[in-house]
Amino acid sequence: MNGLFWLAPIAGITALWFAARFYKEMLRESEGDETMRSIAGYVREGAMAYLKQQYKVVFRLFVGLAIFLAILAYGFKLQNEWVPFAFLTSGFFSGLAGFFGMKTATSASARTAEAARHSLNKGLTVAFRSGAVMGLTVVGLALLDYSFWFLVLKNCVYAASEAERVLLLTTTMVTFGIGASVNALLARVGGGIFTKAADVGADLVGKVEANIPEDDPRNPATIADNVGDNVGDVAGMGADLYESYYGSIIAAASLGAIAFFRQPDLQWNAVLAPALIGALGIFLSLIGIFNVKVGSVETGKAILKALDHGIHVAAIGLVVLSYFLLQWLGLGAHIWGALVAGLVTGIVIGKGCEYYTSAEYKPTRLISEKAESGAGPVIIGGLGAGMSSTMIPVFAVVIGMSLAFGFASQFQVSAFNEGLYGIGLAAVGMLSTLGITLATDAYGPIADNAGGNAEMSGLPKEVRQRTDALDAIGNTTAATGKGFAIGSAALTALALIASYVQELKCGLTRIGKDVITVNGELVKTSDVSLVQLMHFFEVHLLNPKVLMGMFIGSMLAFVFCGITMNAVGRAASKMVDEVRRQFREIKGILTGEAKPDYSRCVRISTESAQREMILPALMCIIFPFVVGACLGVAGVIGMLAGTLASGFVLAIFMANAGGAWDNAKKYIEEGHFGGKGSEAHKAAVIGDTVGDPFKDTSGPALNILLKLMTIASIVGAGLTLACQF
Amino acid sequence: MNGLFWLAPIAGITALWFAARFYKEMLRESEGDETMRSIAGYVREGAMAYLKQQYKVVFRLFVGLAIFLAILAYGFKLQNEWVPFAFLTSGFFSGLAGFFGMKTATSASARTAEAARHSLNKGLTVAFRSGAVMGLTVVGLALLDYSFWFLVLKNCVYAASEAERVLLLTTTMVTFGIGASVNALLARVGGGIFTKAADVGADLVGKVEANIPEDDPRNPATIADNVGDNVGDVAGMGADLYESYYGSIIAAASLGAIAFFRQPDLQWNAVLAPALIGALGIFLSLIGIFNVKVGSVETGKAILKALDHGIHVAAIGLVVLSYFLLQWLGLGAHIWGALVAGLVTGIVIGKGCEYYTSAEYKPTRLISEKAESGAGPVIIGGLGAGMSSTMIPVFAVVIGMSLAFGFASQFQVSAFNEGLYGIGLAAVGMLSTLGITLATDAYGPIADNAGGNAEMSGLPKEVRQRTDALDAIGNTTAATGKGFAIGSAALTALALIASYVQELKCGLTRIGKDVITVNGELVKTSDVSLVQLMHFFEVHLLNPKVLMGMFIGSMLAFVFCGITMNAVGRAASKMVDEVRRQFREIKGILTGEAKPDYSRCVRISTESAQREMILPALMCIIFPFVVGACLGVAGVIGMLAGTLASGFVLAIFMANAGGAWDNAKKYIEEGHFGGKGSEAHKAAVIGDTVGDPFKDTSGPALNILLKLMTIASIVGAGLTLACQF
Repeated sequence: MNGLFWLAPIAGITALWFAARFYKEMLRESEGDETMRSIAGYVREGAMAYLKQQYKVVFRLFVGLAIFLAILAYGFKLQNEWVPFAFLTSGFFSGLAGFFGMKTATSASARTAEAARHSLNKGLTVAFRSGAVMGLTVVGLALLDYSFWFLVLKNCVYAASEAERVLLLTTTMVTFGIGASVNALLARVGGGIFTKAADVGADLVGKVEANIPEDDPRNPATIADNVGDNVGDVAGMGADLYESYYGSIIAAASLGAIAFFRQPDLQWNAVLAPALIGALGIFLSLIGIFNVKVGSVETGKAILKALDHGIHVAAIGLVVLSYFLLQWLGLGAHIWGALVAGLVTGIVIGKGCEYYTSAEYKPTRLISEKAESGAGPVIIGGLGAGMSSTMIPVFAVVIGMSLAFGFASQFQVSAFNEGLYGIGLAAVGMLSTLGITLATDAYGPIADNAGGNAEMSGLPKEVRQRTDALDAIGNTTAATGKGFAIGSAALTALALIASYVQELKCGLTRIGKDVITVNGELVKTSDVSLVQLMHFFEVHLLNPKVLMGMFIGSMLAFVFCGITMNAVGRAASKMVDEVRRQFREIKGILTGEAKPDYSRCVRISTESAQREMILPALMCIIFPFVVGACLGVAGVIGMLAGTLASGFVLAIFMANAGGAWDNAKKYIEEGHFGGKGSEAHKAAVIGDTVGDPFKDTSGPALNILLKLMTIASIVGAGLTLACQF
Repeated sequence: MNGLFWLAPIAGITALWFAARFYKEMLRESEGDETMRSIAGYVREGAMAYLKQQYKVVFRLFVGLAIFLAILAYGFKLQNEWVPFAFLTSGFFSGLAGFFGMKTATSASARTAEAARHSLNKGLTVAFRSGAVMGLTVVGLALLDYSFWFLVLKNCVYAASEAERVLLLTTTMVTFGIGASVNALLARVGGGIFTKAADVGADLVGKVEANIPEDDPRNPATIADNVGDNVGDVAGMGADLYESYYGSIIAAASLGAIAFFRQPDLQWNAVLAPALIGALGIFLSLIGIFNVKVGSVETGKAILKALDHGIHVAAIGLVVLSYFLLQWLGLGAHIWGALVAGLVTGIVIGKGCEYYTSAEYKPTRLISEKAESGAGPVIIGGLGAGMSSTMIPVFAVVIGMSLAFGFASQFQVSAFNEGLYGIGLAAVGMLSTLGITLATDAYGPIADNAGGNAEMSGLPKEVRQRTDALDAIGNTTAATGKGFAIGSAALTALALIASYVQELKCGLTRIGKDVITVNGELVKTSDVSLVQLMHFFEVHLLNPKVLMGMFIGSMLAFVFCGITMNAVGRAASKMVDEVRRQFREIKGILTGEAKPDYSRCVRISTESAQREMILPALMCIIFPFVVGACLGVAGVIGMLAGTLASGFVLAIFMANAGGAWDNAKKYIEEGHFGGKGSEAHKAAVIGDTVGDPFKDTSGPALNILLKLMTIASIVGAGLTLACQF
């Protein structure tokens, strides 16, 4: 093993050290006056109460799943014996990332509002540095978890040859991702239901019916809404991107072990490369973070430019330094090409999402314009634009995939496995600078909450304007962040499917099939290639089992969204009833004489989220087992492909439609087409309401769904084989 | 060739003879008073003007495509020489089916209203018999076209052996479907844009803003709305189902030729069986049609029971008689099992769609209930329910597919081709009684128009109630009909993909590749099996080209919907502006003193439809060629699978969400949750507005998209191979 390995844990610790430093710096800032502190306290309390409740439920589910995995592993010998333990650590770290992120965000909002009283620049610094805590915590914990298990397994896994040992080690590590994936899915779905129930409830009754502004303290759901920003957009997103980041690294490492199986001198290096690129990305993200500064001009554009500058520094640095790193590892410039292809693909996806969701461009403005004809045209327009918006990201991924595959395989048909490794590395490249991109992403909800705090505390109008400027940029960076998450998921999922096929190979040996018949010839199982396994299992597109699997997979993506949308609808209805009840029963709320019962709204959101998040999560875990038992390997791979093809496109559609509706509403609020309070505005608010679960509940959970289902298939591979043979 | 063949043309002629008889009978009915006649005249005129314009555009496009196909066939020898001609006839017949259907429907509406003055039973008879004209015309023309080309090719196609001749004949015939598919797609999309622009425009301004009832003569868009029912729901649906029916027969025939290639005594019978089942279906549909009679109880339930009775007679008859037919043809009971599996699958899909769209059941009622919370929850609820509703039809198709494959292959792995033939026959089974199911489907818009006529002519209230009762049933049968269309499309598409692979075999020989290397062995191209071809072209799910194709395919389904949704949005905006303008500028419209300018609204819908339908249609034809040139066969099949998996689920989602919104609105109009004019009703109308393009423009066109793209791939197979080798 290359000594460079130690870069990974060192980078992880460095990231966490800086995260702690930024956190302490933030705590030293003033939290403002009494009112501001007390409002921040409410939000913090609600968020922590939610998280406590969430982790209780997650803990129970994890114990159940760990027992199930242990039975599979020890009872039936159908699974690697490390999985039950590793499942718990990755879930724990993923939860920890969410917890730290939220701890920071809930402490930062009032401080950001207070800082914004002085200047936009000061507000930006507090919010962005707090976002950086989250970004650095995610990448730091991920690399630490990776390094820890890497070292454990390195000393505990044995096989006939060193090359096989590496292969076994990396394939085992892939299954470790299931803990992170399960936690991420629950965090995304639970947080998404919480935040959107509160948001929809607050908007529908407060804005539309009672005609009071957003974040008005008279609205009983307003604290729940602000809590929601934290549990959904911070804790949920943190867990989500932890999973994406961790998943891309372990998937690429496993493909590296397969691709360089016959070159033992390079195999270790290929396995280490993804984590080392991650380590490089951490150092460059730090440099980028220190490069984010707004000049004297205090406009939204200046903020975006400042953030972009930081990201560009990190990205360009990564392109240059990774070239030398990969050369040093002996992997060559063609592998570097694959990495860069991934990075560029990510940027193109981000720009494509920005085009379709920013009010700077035509699509979103057209939706605003349609608001003059009513809510129907707004919805139709948003759905139409969202569906059309899938073209750019899909082409970007297709071209990125073919370049990554082509570069890494040097356009030789025989180098199929190297090509797959290239695709895995492309996903790593896309997420390599996550430390800073996530910082720009996580700062959005902080700014959003700061605005809420400013509004509720009655701070001067210009403070709210400044936080609004910060928040608006946050919407764009959030759309970009979702693009990265889903783009990398598409590439990672392909890599994971390859790992699944590799796991089948181990599984065949485990059930005693040391020799199999491929295309009429007897072959030793340990010698078959991935492509030969595809022939052996008949995973081609005329096999009805593959097509049935595809139908089921595609359906699952839709049903998953349907269930989560309905959950938001149900929870929002309860919230609407409660807000209406409070307006009706508590006299004097609207005149400001009586205080609404905030905590009851928080409780409604919490309970709904906890109850509703279980079913969709279980669905993703159970179906790979059921389909495997009924339709065999061909059905499982078909299902994964179906979920991937549908879910990828569906996720972009939902994220972009939701973002466009939100910004179309904001565009009208800026004074276009009648401005706030006009009929057009009301129509746009309805659009935004529909967009809420699109962009913050169902849509962003899909990228986790893709990976969770694949990892669940890997975990269930032994059972599938046992049923099939 | 079996002499039974002649049953097909005889059945076709019988169907047309009865269609003519029903048409003449209907014409003999009274068309009511002066006002009723003049309103029917407006609608007829508008519809015919639209169709004339539509066919002009289609004609030009067809000439262009025919030249393109001729160049491919004669210039580059990349395509069979019959395609350019057959392309034209199937397109012509498909257009003719739409024309006859519309001619009947526009003549029937006032007569139905007049008949409903007497009794519900009389209204039903006129409307249903007129619908039967459409149903019988579609199946009659399809079997005639089939028989004609069958006889032509039988005498003109030559090959080394009789078995190869049959194979060449049927593969050639599959490509003939492209004409029907292109025309169907244009009819569905054009008609869908027309009708929904008018409907949305009429609803948004008339119902919501001006608070006047549906079909009120004061609404300038009301005639356009009624014209739309005819061009979209009659002409569009007719062309659509012509294509589905024709497509399922030729696809199954082609699979029969492949499956029984080595049993020359059975091959002809297997090829003829699909058409003969169709012929059987025609005779049984006629018996069923004569069995539709309402008793003395005049309720909606009685109507549904009467229609169901007719359908059951036909279906049960088919199950029984087809057993003897297939035994006689020597194909055996196991093939019959596949056919029945398809028929049952269709019924389950229909029931599943009914459950999710009928206000009799919980899902739709929940949407109505949400209307009390506002338009946002209605939309979220409908989207959620629509997405969840995909589960039943997908499981039905998956189980139906596996049974059909299992029965036909007698659960033997070696009988792969027989299994595929079984899936093809399942699609035929699903559509076999189309003569009567389409009649129950086409009667819906006739009843709808009759209601419009009654409203505008100021007929007594009970007449409108009777036509409303007829219309409500029409909504349910329409949802069922769409379920059949999309379910059969999923099965047919798989059969067509198999035909594509077969065409590749011919194509390889055509470009001089008489011997290819499969799995390291040299094989004569004429001897390779379909599965070997999948290996040769590397069409497995780890091939990145396959996955890229899948992403593109899935994206195309979404972008297609996006483009058509946007087209409806644009056209509806124009309509809204126009209706508002007329209300504003023509004094006295709302008091009934002045007449609105109906024709201008018709013109707006017509022009929008013509302009907007070209791009999505061209997209479906061009992409198979482009993807074939760039990604080769693996990419094309990946794309088809991606479109199939996504498009199938998307189509069900859109059809069911749209149907549920429509019926949720109707449920409120019946007096629930505040009834007509309440806030809940307004919210439900917005839901219905969004649902309109879902269920009548984008959704139902997807089933044609699946097949058109596959047939375009078959036509482009030669070009793809020329680029790849």
